[in-house]
Amino acid sequence: MTKQQLFEQILKKQSFLCVGLDTDIKMIPEHLLDTEDPIYEFNKAIIDATTPYCVAYKPNLAFYESEGVNGWMAFEKTVAYIRQRYPDQFIIADAKRGDIGNTSEMYARTFFDEVKVNAVTVAPYMGKDSVKPFLIYPERWVILLALTSNKGALDFQLTEDRNGERLFEKVLRVSQQWATAEQMMYVVGATQGKLFEDVRKIVPEHFLLVPGVGAQGGSLEEVCRYGMNKSCGLLVNSSRGIIYADSTEDFAYTAGQEARKLQQEMKEMLEKFGVSQILN
Amino acid sequence: MTKQQLFEQILKKQSFLCVGLDTDIKMIPEHLLDTEDPIYEFNKAIIDATTPYCVAYKPNLAFYESEGVNGWMAFEKTVAYIRQRYPDQFIIADAKRGDIGNTSEMYARTFFDEVKVNAVTVAPYMGKDSVKPFLIYPERWVILLALTSNKGALDFQLTEDRNGERLFEKVLRVSQQWATAEQMMYVVGATQGKLFEDVRKIVPEHFLLVPGVGAQGGSLEEVCRYGMNKSCGLLVNSSRGIIYADSTEDFAYTAGQEARKLQQEMKEMLEKFGVSQILN
Repeated sequence: MTKQQLFEQILKKQSFLCVGLDTDIKMIPEHLLDTEDPIYEFNKAIIDATTPYCVAYKPNLAFYESEGVNGWMAFEKTVAYIRQRYPDQFIIADAKRGDIGNTSEMYARTFFDEVKVNAVTVAPYMGKDSVKPFLIYPERWVILLALTSNKGALDFQLTEDRNGERLFEKVLRVSQQWATAEQMMYVVGATQGKLFEDVRKIVPEHFLLVPGVGAQGGSLEEVCRYGMNKSCGLLVNSSRGIIYADSTEDFAYTAGQEARKLQQEMKEMLEKFGVSQILN
Repeated sequence: MTKQQLFEQILKKQSFLCVGLDTDIKMIPEHLLDTEDPIYEFNKAIIDATTPYCVAYKPNLAFYESEGVNGWMAFEKTVAYIRQRYPDQFIIADAKRGDIGNTSEMYARTFFDEVKVNAVTVAPYMGKDSVKPFLIYPERWVILLALTSNKGALDFQLTEDRNGERLFEKVLRVSQQWATAEQMMYVVGATQGKLFEDVRKIVPEHFLLVPGVGAQGGSLEEVCRYGMNKSCGLLVNSSRGIIYADSTEDFAYTAGQEARKLQQEMKEMLEKFGVSQILN
């Protein structure tokens, strides 16, 4: 999917919501546990209920891997289900991979050739040759960690170099030489508030994947005030706040309602910050 | 496995070799492709042939994931095989994971509770709370990326902060507050030569996992000169140079011979730098 196509979806749905599929077998409603593949059944119901209100899904690989072979199967089936039923959805494998060239090549092959997601999250620590192998696939995306939503972001990401450039700023700056805004996005946590301004000074055009609204405490309005650009430029993720909003048999309906609430807020933000006007 | 137990294995085998199981289905000898699980059959033969000469195995997750469900199954079976047949071997899941707390918890559960490896490689970019969940398992290890063997290591890892401390040095220093040398090791690439001296100034007691000897061009003697400590303190990995040394039906025998050559060199190094004397 191209940047323009993603933007068109955002305008069409008046939403820049990404639903995080952090599906934990321990959190799945009891009545699904007797089915053949509870994780997949849960995901299907969540996806059917939330798809009108979101433009992206983000399965978090850790949750699938923890179930071993069955988990991997559920992950692959989930991606195939979205791809077939809702081909306009942008699918992100949240994997935080990154390794030496020949190994990153294998990861890229897995996620882009085999499973066929649109984007993979990648860690920047190992530099250019650990990221490049993901970029040879046209219209597929790398979403590079820049400034994450967790407390540990303070440990290294804000370290200033001799010229006062912080590590996340260096990551943003240097990685722009590896790919354009047509293939690269950045992870910037919703908890980072005003730092979005500093991010936007370096990457005004790029899409940002923003986790941390909801369970982690980030504010949607603040993210939009400091992070939105003319093409929206944001994919805001919510996982637990949507998929675990209700543990009864009505879980999917409730998830849909939670997604709808966020979509309504996002619609307001698009209007408030002038993005929806492009439609007119 | 404790640090002392690992050291005892090194003394016993006069080897600090780790065999990297970067098993690529495209590189497996043809006669194995008709078996039910070629990756697992290949690994078993490699393991049986190399086990007298090494103290550790390091399956590289990228290679297994690229084969989807079958790959995961081969990974799990390989670890179970080593665990059962050769319980003294140290098993490293080379996964380079690291994510927010609740996600790292899932990865830790996967590798330590389900698959039962001894150690996982972890990326430091997201800081303390992304690493901590791996450290609640007694006698299991985090192997944190510090100074990697690839060219991209230059992009961020050598960035100096205001006080002249380089990022890899900060990672070494700060992460020592998270765990002791009984649970933490560091990845330092064999291609880094004299920088091992700088690493040892900060972490004199820790084990280092050293990739990059062989295909990537690092020198074993140099690594030992600058990196070895009184308890050896090194696990030197070789993957391609051993497992793909021969693509005929004799592949396992040849792999064993290649491992043996490295073991002989390592024995010399242990003598040269005075480590083997501790046995006397």
